[in-house]
Amino acid sequence: MTFSLSAGIPILERTPRVLHALLGDLPREWTHATEGPDTWSPFDVVGHLIHGERTDWIPRSRIILEQGSNRRFAPFDRFAQSRDSEGKSLAELLDEFTRLRAESLATLKGWQLGDAQLALVGEHPAFGAVSLRQLLATWVAHDVSHIAQIARVMTKQLRDDVGPWREYLPIMDR
Amino acid sequence: MTFSLSAGIPILERTPRVLHALLGDLPREWTHATEGPDTWSPFDVVGHLIHGERTDWIPRSRIILEQGSNRRFAPFDRFAQSRDSEGKSLAELLDEFTRLRAESLATLKGWQLGDAQLALVGEHPAFGAVSLRQLLATWVAHDVSHIAQIARVMTKQLRDDVGPWREYLPIMDR
Repeated sequence: MTFSLSAGIPILERTPRVLHALLGDLPREWTHATEGPDTWSPFDVVGHLIHGERTDWIPRSRIILEQGSNRRFAPFDRFAQSRDSEGKSLAELLDEFTRLRAESLATLKGWQLGDAQLALVGEHPAFGAVSLRQLLATWVAHDVSHIAQIARVMTKQLRDDVGPWREYLPIMDR
Repeated sequence: MTFSLSAGIPILERTPRVLHALLGDLPREWTHATEGPDTWSPFDVVGHLIHGERTDWIPRSRIILEQGSNRRFAPFDRFAQSRDSEGKSLAELLDEFTRLRAESLATLKGWQLGDAQLALVGEHPAFGAVSLRQLLATWVAHDVSHIAQIARVMTKQLRDDVGPWREYLPIMDR
């Protein structure tokens, strides 16, 4: 696949629906389970996705599109959700993410980006020069990678319950 | 988590909705992509889940519950979907899976299984003695593990598009 907006937007649109279908009204023993100390629960991941909508994908795209004198992105806070999600229910987070994602997509589609804009470059604090095309491809990949993570965390909760079938479920020991 | 039907059934119920949300009407470049030769696409995985509904989870549970003289399961055909899915659209497979899963859950709930039944044992062709509780826990784990697989396959399609962010997406090289 070569990344295009027409391939990427359908994924970005689906993620809120996927998370609702997978996690909505699910017992807490699933939604708050982790892979061990200092790893994330499905609840934590949704908070992380919310923080991405607020501070990463669209804000960084703006920095690139504006082509100002300082095109350096603010570092992304990978732990913001532990503060921002505190006291909220998963249902609240899912609704918040759904709303923010809809706003992000409206902005993205409104830009009507062409190849020339997708080739514009900003400065990542660790990587240096990155293109808008790479940023948007990463947004899409980031979504599906976190869906995979949530499902992996859930799979692992049954590690001690599947008996000898664990041999056929290598994801449990990944 | 110690596996229970009250924890497991909500997952089994959600899987068809998750697959619809993730894959329904998605361009073929996503649904038929693989991780390389002899690996499965999302389309293949849905076919595999259908075959499980037909030949694995409920049929094997029946063998255990009946406690007949021969409690050995028929081997599961991991490649049946390449034959069974041929000529079908993903939309057809998703609908078929949704229908079969609803039937499976009606059967499972109708049994009103208690601890004594969950402890009953059948014979797996490779593993030997396995309990009904282990079989049902594996059914649930198998669902989420394949959701994780589908999302991983999709993530990998953007491997060459994310530029330096590949370093932050280790799932792409897993």
